[in-house]
Amino acid sequence: MKKENISDAVVRRLPRYYRQLTDLYTRGVVRISSSNLGKEMNITASQIRQDFSCFGEFGQQGYGYNVEELRSEIGHILGVDNNHHLIIIGVGNLGHAILHNFPFSQNGFAVDAAFDVNPDLVGTTICGVPVCSMDQLESFLAEHRVDVALLTIPQSVAQETTNRLMNLGVKGFWNFTNIELTSDNPDVKFENIHFADSLLILSYRISNR
Amino acid sequence: MKKENISDAVVRRLPRYYRQLTDLYTRGVVRISSSNLGKEMNITASQIRQDFSCFGEFGQQGYGYNVEELRSEIGHILGVDNNHHLIIIGVGNLGHAILHNFPFSQNGFAVDAAFDVNPDLVGTTICGVPVCSMDQLESFLAEHRVDVALLTIPQSVAQETTNRLMNLGVKGFWNFTNIELTSDNPDVKFENIHFADSLLILSYRISNR
Repeated sequence: MKKENISDAVVRRLPRYYRQLTDLYTRGVVRISSSNLGKEMNITASQIRQDFSCFGEFGQQGYGYNVEELRSEIGHILGVDNNHHLIIIGVGNLGHAILHNFPFSQNGFAVDAAFDVNPDLVGTTICGVPVCSMDQLESFLAEHRVDVALLTIPQSVAQETTNRLMNLGVKGFWNFTNIELTSDNPDVKFENIHFADSLLILSYRISNR
Repeated sequence: MKKENISDAVVRRLPRYYRQLTDLYTRGVVRISSSNLGKEMNITASQIRQDFSCFGEFGQQGYGYNVEELRSEIGHILGVDNNHHLIIIGVGNLGHAILHNFPFSQNGFAVDAAFDVNPDLVGTTICGVPVCSMDQLESFLAEHRVDVALLTIPQSVAQETTNRLMNLGVKGFWNFTNIELTSDNPDVKFENIHFADSLLILSYRISNR
């Protein structure tokens, strides 16, 4: 029951709902009202009902939401059951940390390979993920479906590496390089983790309170 | 010339302006019109003029913006010249990676110390930053001003550690734990890097294109 043209703000709240519902489900909560869900998340109940109405009707007036069902439905909307395939480009400190710490499979992603230019890393395995040479990108992508490339490479090579990956058919980029990447292809999607932007927003908030 | 009640959306665009202007300045660009700045950033010129009008007048009609002045002004609004002091709580893989890779000083932050429970780390120095025991938090904070605590600790201890730091007077938290932290004190500011939310937004975008 997906509607068209869901606003960016609604989409950005969906993972928060999913996270909160996962937490409630883990705590054994079976049913929750929009007002109690709102209290937990610091969102108004009417905002919640409005957000969910973009995707159809999940609750029943007066009965609240079934936590397990709602979590599963929002997970489905987010695509966590789509079994996405991801590769990591760049296995420096940050790439290592993400491989070690981030629960990819919980979020519906399989990490199939990592790529680096460092000959000391190529041929090794990190957390079960084989590290390949950047020279092997073309042959790997000829044989494997890759939905998302996670980029933790130097800024100086970020756009050119993105272009190379796009030419090989990759259409999703999880970008940790802290520069804006662009594509002429509207099917290509970028999602950025901008550490500096985040810290500067905090800087603003503590400087202007 | 700061106005009150700047919207969250405007604040969240400020670091992007700062980043783009830093890039232009580095490339030797002296002056830029709002329409050309907009093209570089994929924002409309009128949006840019409207955003900047929240903070006073930066450009002159028909002459565009002086890149160096505007960069400096936005940096000032963001507080990059406030010499903020930061400590890192948790020096696992992610804490290490951030210490190694993130240009704190470029963003106006000095990293004064890191804290961990791992006895193998305590007493060492990472990228010039001394690693202290968590037991030393109280004595350190009694003697040093700390504006922001960067949290890369397990979720199970995140809120309790935050409470401990708030009791010691810390009012800014850069939160990498992927859980929501809360405070009753409106002066306490949280800024979250939610890796999972970001990847799920990308998952949504590639599942619904």
